[in-house]
Amino acid sequence: MANIPDERYDEIANDPFCATLGIELTTLESGGARTELTVREELLNFHGTPHGGVVYSLADAAFAAASNADGDTALALETNISYLSAADVGDRLVAVAEREDETRRTGTYRVDVAVEARAEEDEAETETEDGSGGTETAREGSEGTEEASDPENVAIFRGRVYKP
Amino acid sequence: MANIPDERYDEIANDPFCATLGIELTTLESGGARTELTVREELLNFHGTPHGGVVYSLADAAFAAASNADGDTALALETNISYLSAADVGDRLVAVAEREDETRRTGTYRVDVAVEARAEEDEAETETEDGSGGTETAREGSEGTEEASDPENVAIFRGRVYKP
Amino acid sequence: MANIPDERYDEIANDPFCATLGIELTTLESGGARTELTVREELLNFHGTPHGGVVYSLADAAFAAASNADGDTALALETNISYLSAADVGDRLVAVAEREDETRRTGTYRVDVAVEARAEEDEAETETEDGSGGTETAREGSEGTEEASDPENVAIFRGRVYKP
Amino acid sequence: MANIPDERYDEIANDPFCATLGIELTTLESGGARTELTVREELLNFHGTPHGGVVYSLADAAFAAASNADGDTALALETNISYLSAADVGDRLVAVAEREDETRRTGTYRVDVAVEARAEEDEAETETEDGSGGTETAREGSEGTEEASDPENVAIFRGRVYKP
Repeated sequence: MANIPDERYDEIANDPFCATLGIELTTLESGGARTELTVREELLNFHGTPHGGVVYSLADAAFAAASNADGDTALALETNISYLSAADVGDRLVAVAEREDETRRTGTYRVDVAVEARAEEDEAETETEDGSGGTETAREGSEGTEEASDPENVAIFRGRVYKP
Repeated sequence: MANIPDERYDEIANDPFCATLGIELTTLESGGARTELTVREELLNFHGTPHGGVVYSLADAAFAAASNADGDTALALETNISYLSAADVGDRLVAVAEREDETRRTGTYRVDVAVEARAEEDEAETETEDGSGGTETAREGSEGTEEASDPENVAIFRGRVYKP
Repeated sequence: MANIPDERYDEIANDPFCATLGIELTTLESGGARTELTVREELLNFHGTPHGGVVYSLADAAFAAASNADGDTALALETNISYLSAADVGDRLVAVAEREDETRRTGTYRVDVAVEARAEEDEAETETEDGSGGTETAREGSEGTEEASDPENVAIFRGRVYKP
Repeated sequence: MANIPDERYDEIANDPFCATLGIELTTLESGGARTELTVREELLNFHGTPHGGVVYSLADAAFAAASNADGDTALALETNISYLSAADVGDRLVAVAEREDETRRTGTYRVDVAVEARAEEDEAETETEDGSGGTETAREGSEGTEEASDPENVAIFRGRVYKP
């Protein structure tokens, strides 16, 4: 982070909406950033999984930080996201943004969202007294298409910025 | 809304994350939905405009409502969003989702996000006593690429769902 | 087409790659265009349906024509396409592009690709001597997810241009 | 390629549209593929650069090959592409597809398109008799936004398939 001026770092780290959701900026460098968020009940959708807007916001926050780290204003033009698997309450989600290409006026970034640390209840499942291994996790069952997915990958995001 | 069972309507209207952000579901019908949100300071990014995650969440909430209105679970696979112009604190944002195509296993939806009602200060600007027209708006000047944009259009979102 | 200078029209209508594939420009106006192509054997993929690159190229040609119709150079930054259903050899595909939003430096376009006219064999199916209605069409059965899809809709494309 | 049955390899390698454009399949493995194409005059658009449909088709061919290599039919649902820089006639373009995530019913792939080998004229420029270095390349000047781009990167493509 040595190459990001303190003023710039503070401005980005104090993003009002990130504070509202509890998104933390944990790395910021030229063209790269890392944001983190722990899933809470109030961030779920009506299916009981993290709202798409929550996963997107975490990725978008990393994208905005990475693309504005050098000090020139970069505005999002187009973004897209592929949802891969859900996460549970208590899981720690991490989004890592990196610049893929840059031109004078535009920049292309990729952000991977993954589960870094599982909620404690997952571990607790193997410690039930009766040795049954506990109930099935919400993860296996809530997502019909995702049985074979690597449980670490939650989403892949890509964005293009314009530098006015 | 006559064709959406009360239970289904209540489940969708009580989405926890929408409650957290203040997103209201104002229309729900088969394949269509409308959500609304007033921009507040806590929803801004470090540029001083609504965070991309806020605009996306409003659109995604309309998308999720529209695609789940009929009762079968629909999970988001892929979405993309084009950002067109920013909005100001106090503006009322409206997202209108409609189904564009449906197959047995997938569905395609489009969501338009626009400013429905401007913050009061915009109107007040033309009523200043000295006739100066007030201060410049945040809108003009904050978005280098957007001068010629229709101020009503904030973003266009598109999403594909899978029905497991 | 009265508002597009002849020189500009000729330049766009004589696109080399469109000539290679057989894509015809049938409408050109400010912010809008229509392109057409008849599906031939040489445009199929190894599944026996029109190659994704063919459907995309038809849409992209309409997008490029619409976004360059006014004379200022517009370069594609980002595009995306949703594939809805396949088409058959002999089908006439039509792509209609329209501008959705424009700013000083960027523009957003939507292109709908549909089957305008069916291959003759489809009609012939109802004229078989034994009145059986003929064999099942390749369409029904070739696309596992598309049974319920409106057979007219082949794809929805969206693109963003930058005007240097 | 040992793990791809000959029949499957032959089916994919003999894609009719790829033959039409001159796209060659040079690698095929489980979840991965590489396709190549040399830019010819007939593949250009009216700007004089490779048509977006050509770059897309090359990427889409690698995507289709990679996602169908294991033998199960995979159909493209959604794709998107970011255009980074143009290429010249004579350039050898290479698209490399790799699987990023897979579930029982869907798969996510990324394809990078780059210039592998420059047209001979680029090299010839440094061999002019008068030592002037030759004329400016078409590349510099044809793409207003791309001056700072790595000339190797032409596009980044991402696609999602459905396995019926």
